[in-house]
Amino acid sequence: MHTHPFDWLDEQAEARRRAGLLRTLTPRPAASPLLDLAGNDYLGLTRHPAVARAAADAALRWGAGSTGSRLVTGTTELHAELESELADFCGFEAALVLASGYAANLAAVTALTARPGTLVVSDAYNHASLIDGCRLSRARTAVVPHRDPRAAAGEFAAHGGPAVAVTDSVFSVDGDAADLPALARVCRAAGAGLLVDDAHGLGVLGEGGRGAAAAAGLAGDADVVVTATLSKSLGSQGGVVLGPARVIRHLVNTARTFIFDTALAPAAAGGALAALRLARAEPQRAARVREVARETARMLAGEGLQVCEPDAAVVSVRAPSPEAAVRWAADCRAAGLAVGCFRPPSVPDGVSRVRLTARADLTDAQLRTVVGTVAATAPRAR
Amino acid sequence: MHTHPFDWLDEQAEARRRAGLLRTLTPRPAASPLLDLAGNDYLGLTRHPAVARAAADAALRWGAGSTGSRLVTGTTELHAELESELADFCGFEAALVLASGYAANLAAVTALTARPGTLVVSDAYNHASLIDGCRLSRARTAVVPHRDPRAAAGEFAAHGGPAVAVTDSVFSVDGDAADLPALARVCRAAGAGLLVDDAHGLGVLGEGGRGAAAAAGLAGDADVVVTATLSKSLGSQGGVVLGPARVIRHLVNTARTFIFDTALAPAAAGGALAALRLARAEPQRAARVREVARETARMLAGEGLQVCEPDAAVVSVRAPSPEAAVRWAADCRAAGLAVGCFRPPSVPDGVSRVRLTARADLTDAQLRTVVGTVAATAPRAR
Repeated sequence: MHTHPFDWLDEQAEARRRAGLLRTLTPRPAASPLLDLAGNDYLGLTRHPAVARAAADAALRWGAGSTGSRLVTGTTELHAELESELADFCGFEAALVLASGYAANLAAVTALTARPGTLVVSDAYNHASLIDGCRLSRARTAVVPHRDPRAAAGEFAAHGGPAVAVTDSVFSVDGDAADLPALARVCRAAGAGLLVDDAHGLGVLGEGGRGAAAAAGLAGDADVVVTATLSKSLGSQGGVVLGPARVIRHLVNTARTFIFDTALAPAAAGGALAALRLARAEPQRAARVREVARETARMLAGEGLQVCEPDAAVVSVRAPSPEAAVRWAADCRAAGLAVGCFRPPSVPDGVSRVRLTARADLTDAQLRTVVGTVAATAPRAR
Repeated sequence: MHTHPFDWLDEQAEARRRAGLLRTLTPRPAASPLLDLAGNDYLGLTRHPAVARAAADAALRWGAGSTGSRLVTGTTELHAELESELADFCGFEAALVLASGYAANLAAVTALTARPGTLVVSDAYNHASLIDGCRLSRARTAVVPHRDPRAAAGEFAAHGGPAVAVTDSVFSVDGDAADLPALARVCRAAGAGLLVDDAHGLGVLGEGGRGAAAAAGLAGDADVVVTATLSKSLGSQGGVVLGPARVIRHLVNTARTFIFDTALAPAAAGGALAALRLARAEPQRAARVREVARETARMLAGEGLQVCEPDAAVVSVRAPSPEAAVRWAADCRAAGLAVGCFRPPSVPDGVSRVRLTARADLTDAQLRTVVGTVAATAPRAR
């Protein structure tokens, strides 16, 4: 007599409940009364009339879906146009659009490490999609301490063979940035490639939001590859890999999440393209989102809260426990403010946080409301 | 002096070129003159006015993007509505929508095999996303011969511990179907779970297109989990996991491609929901696509071509070499017909094929044109 194959799920659910780590879904209405500092719509473009209209027009013109893999029927002229403009804006030779940022990272990590004997050196706080890319690759992975180019150099030296360093540009939990110039120097000294996930940098960092690689003077370099998402600053859905043309061709020919996945839907491509054009035409959006983040952090610190210095749009505030973080976020919500709540296993150091994400379209008055609400609902034990 | 970190890509590209395996992207215009038997728009819904309009309306109402992870701001009432109707249509207790079918398979395989000591038994011809799910899981994977429930039973018996069988319902290269009733019996005898990827079955198989699990009498069973894509019969983008509510709750709490990925864009959710309602209201679409596939295969076999018996919408014809398959598909294209061209590494047995995908909206006259074109352009060496 066997036990039921899924009975073990109940025990795991009960353990999560006891630890205060149970997650449930809360559907939001189209017209939410909440002030949103939880999403990743950094430039305030996802509901911009021109962006929503472009997404709608693309669905009407091309259909609701792309009908197949990019290599079969999924590549439209709209995808090609988006790739061309993304490469141009970010300063890279070529670009490849995938169905999600997760897929882009799996594609980039596995493709760049496919050479036998490659070592991949990965920051300890990298995003789950980069970590899964390392797991899927056949390469040996050395996890190095957070933001530690010297540790990367040590791994390169000990290995001696082909290598690639993999890092977020802006880390999603605390909003701190990698030291890309230092990491690039270390990579070059070792003849290693550099792969940067710029999900939280595109649209925010660099001149006019051209991204972290542009800000570090690395855009278009022959040994640098960047991934990013179309679902944050570009207000849509999808992922992109930016790099030398030969890297992009290699992905087209080998990356499983590119070859064996349906192409991004036309509406998402159309929305992202419209958002990209707005970001380019209105560079003040990138400057404003950085200003909002800095001001939010400064004012929250002034209230005595434990805030990280934001390097981009993410402002992270520590909470004393997972339960306290959940209650804090719930109290903010009851007061009309949506903030993120980050708990294990979504935090690399096990410390729970509430997380605020700046938006370019926040007014100074809204910013004061945000800070007042977060401070008034803060756990007493801080 | 180091070599450039990406020089090895040129050697690989040259090797692919020599082997006739070079892939390039061919962007299509919005109004393509080609008759499409290459895409996966099985029910002919992706450009149906109601589906395209629903996708457009969702973008206008909800924005071009979902703004965040499903667990943060990404879950809208539209996602919840889609999940409820998908579960109801397919006959399962609950459903969870993800950004792609690839993501759904990675989520389902890793989540169901997370119990220590689990064995995953995987069909040798499974889709890349299931294989990558097995690679990402910490479970030991036993790859069994194609469509061989007895081999699965042998692996279960040899293992003795917790186990899950993983299979495509319809295999994408040859269009043949798994023997799900037999596999389910074997799983039950061993107390193992069963995970079925119904990407090519949803909308096509079962009463009114309710899918392969419904066709096999397994829909809603407590030990069965199904994944599917919203980008084929449902004409949109995204993936779904269908199963018992506790499995879905487990995914919400643990699946990395669910937790750490931006939610599906509203336009894709809206398009898929409209397509689902059409599929339900017009069950003759499912019957027609199966009829078109059978007729296509019968007529191609009558022309002396090596055709697989189609179990769903995919009709596969063998080619003598990768080069011949490429030329054959190109000749069809020159004659106004788009067909798929499958070559290594996209074919598990190394045999190249041209692949035709049936659509419910093909007329009998178009079908005759298709068969005439494929036969007239067939390689002489057959």
